[in-house]
Amino acid sequence: MDPITPLRLARPGIEILDQTELPAREVRLRIETVDALCEAIAALRVRGAPLLGTCGAAGMAIAAEERGTGEAILRDAAGQIGRTRPTAVELSWGAAAALGEALAVGGEPGAVRSRLWEFVANHMARRQAEDLALANHGAGLLPVGAGVLTHCNAGGLATGGIGTALGVIRVAHELGRVGHCYATETRPLLQGARLTAWELVRVGVPASLLPDTAAAALIASGRVQAVVTGADRIAKNGDSANKIGTYGLALAAARHGVPFYIAAPRTTMDRECPDGRSIPIEFRDAAEVGGFGGVRWSPDGMGAFNPAFDVTPGDLISAIITEAGVARPPYGDSLASLVAEP
Amino acid sequence: MDPITPLRLARPGIEILDQTELPAREVRLRIETVDALCEAIAALRVRGAPLLGTCGAAGMAIAAEERGTGEAILRDAAGQIGRTRPTAVELSWGAAAALGEALAVGGEPGAVRSRLWEFVANHMARRQAEDLALANHGAGLLPVGAGVLTHCNAGGLATGGIGTALGVIRVAHELGRVGHCYATETRPLLQGARLTAWELVRVGVPASLLPDTAAAALIASGRVQAVVTGADRIAKNGDSANKIGTYGLALAAARHGVPFYIAAPRTTMDRECPDGRSIPIEFRDAAEVGGFGGVRWSPDGMGAFNPAFDVTPGDLISAIITEAGVARPPYGDSLASLVAEP
Repeated sequence: MDPITPLRLARPGIEILDQTELPAREVRLRIETVDALCEAIAALRVRGAPLLGTCGAAGMAIAAEERGTGEAILRDAAGQIGRTRPTAVELSWGAAAALGEALAVGGEPGAVRSRLWEFVANHMARRQAEDLALANHGAGLLPVGAGVLTHCNAGGLATGGIGTALGVIRVAHELGRVGHCYATETRPLLQGARLTAWELVRVGVPASLLPDTAAAALIASGRVQAVVTGADRIAKNGDSANKIGTYGLALAAARHGVPFYIAAPRTTMDRECPDGRSIPIEFRDAAEVGGFGGVRWSPDGMGAFNPAFDVTPGDLISAIITEAGVARPPYGDSLASLVAEP
Repeated sequence: MDPITPLRLARPGIEILDQTELPAREVRLRIETVDALCEAIAALRVRGAPLLGTCGAAGMAIAAEERGTGEAILRDAAGQIGRTRPTAVELSWGAAAALGEALAVGGEPGAVRSRLWEFVANHMARRQAEDLALANHGAGLLPVGAGVLTHCNAGGLATGGIGTALGVIRVAHELGRVGHCYATETRPLLQGARLTAWELVRVGVPASLLPDTAAAALIASGRVQAVVTGADRIAKNGDSANKIGTYGLALAAARHGVPFYIAAPRTTMDRECPDGRSIPIEFRDAAEVGGFGGVRWSPDGMGAFNPAFDVTPGDLISAIITEAGVARPPYGDSLASLVAEP
């Protein structure tokens, strides 16, 4: 088994690694209700766009066990799950795809439940194969011995496979193409400091952590030959929503002629979304800013600006790496043909 | 007395507000030895380029009380103080200026000591007047009701006056020109979340805190009409070293046509330094990254990239605001004429 396994099936529920407890503790939680799943998603115990796709599908299997298999019940559950994190298109996609499976089976409750669990298991296996394909496509873009900067966590913890951006880095490291990985802390929730750092240490890639503030100086210093991040939603023109802070990395990379790559599965592509202005951006609780984990650094009496995502315009993205291949700008046509592939 | 007073003279020493304890506690420390002063400077209990100038001068008065007034003793103390934070040119400047005063007085120890304390007091009064002049020059650059983004702490805590960047914001707010101030957290040492937030609440400017990662999205959102930061060292061509993260703000401001201003006293200008490549950059301890205040978020087993400053190229700076007026690009001549003014 891969050293990084954030979600396992355990019918009638699932078992998740509580990512809010990493790296200090490896706590596994059993989830057997839709409400518990939604709480875990909202609290970021499970996170990462691809893994949220799996959660969306698994949530429907859990709903069928917990609440029943009637169409109204399942539609209601799919809506509840999708609304938990509105920017993450894969969450809704996973729930909707599982709903379609359930409705296609027809009425017999036992058959619906079995079909849903089978769908989730197949989905997970496919995701793992897709991560590997994506990583192989991406690793070829990096020069030998490259320094690579990544942001947030687009690793196995985020996908259930070897990861997207971190999968590229893992495979490229095995091929000698990555010499050193730089990971941002990723305020406010510190997914880089907590999760990416944990993965990099665990898989043995030489790595350094940096404050988010140091990213532009790092890029200016010549230490990195590529920036690789994941994405939460990609519009038709290539504009990409990802963890807050990604846009700033892309601006610095562009200034210094360093390639900026997005590594994301095709399910991240929203073909209904023409450009970045149409991507809904989730604003999160003010309490996440000015403190962490119950410790406050800032005084009371002021507001907060705390969007979970920003949008990197397609013109700053050197390539979008998917399991079906690599798209280059201009993205309208190149993304459309990737999506059209089987 | 101003609500923000980071340093008071208390012969034979000084009393400082320990800024590492803010905003939770207001702890004042008596400093009566050069070693204690250097420890306080290295640990950032006192910080901010202009206040470090005062510390440099006050350190010489303390040295004369503690160690004696011989030329070799005082030269040695000036060297010790200056080496404590090599990027902050004002620290060495303050110590060297006080040394010059002491040597000009001649040998009588009592007279040297009195002259040094008088020099420090005059320096503090002049700094306060200069902050006000700078703030008035800068406030005129802001449109009515502007949203303004600042970084780190360039306030009264950093200068002993009303501040440089925050002084501009305070005066502009009194004039109705600033409607809302946005402050970055400023990892790794969180001077924005701890110090700027404390000052803004204390002086009553409506304000919001943001993770450093959210700055580019904030600028892209149209909420800010100007970015104003301090500087630690300004080269002859306008390249400006300031707290790590400043460069990224300037890149985002340039992309969105938002003016980016540096507010700094003329003592920050290093006329020996042709450009940013010649500015020495202090790298700080790896333990500052991946945690704060004794709490660790990141696992063991990886390195850190932790420069204290970055360099914003002059071509990204819309204007440099000083107590003697405002310099505009190209900076070679405009800065030289500001420096030449009385």
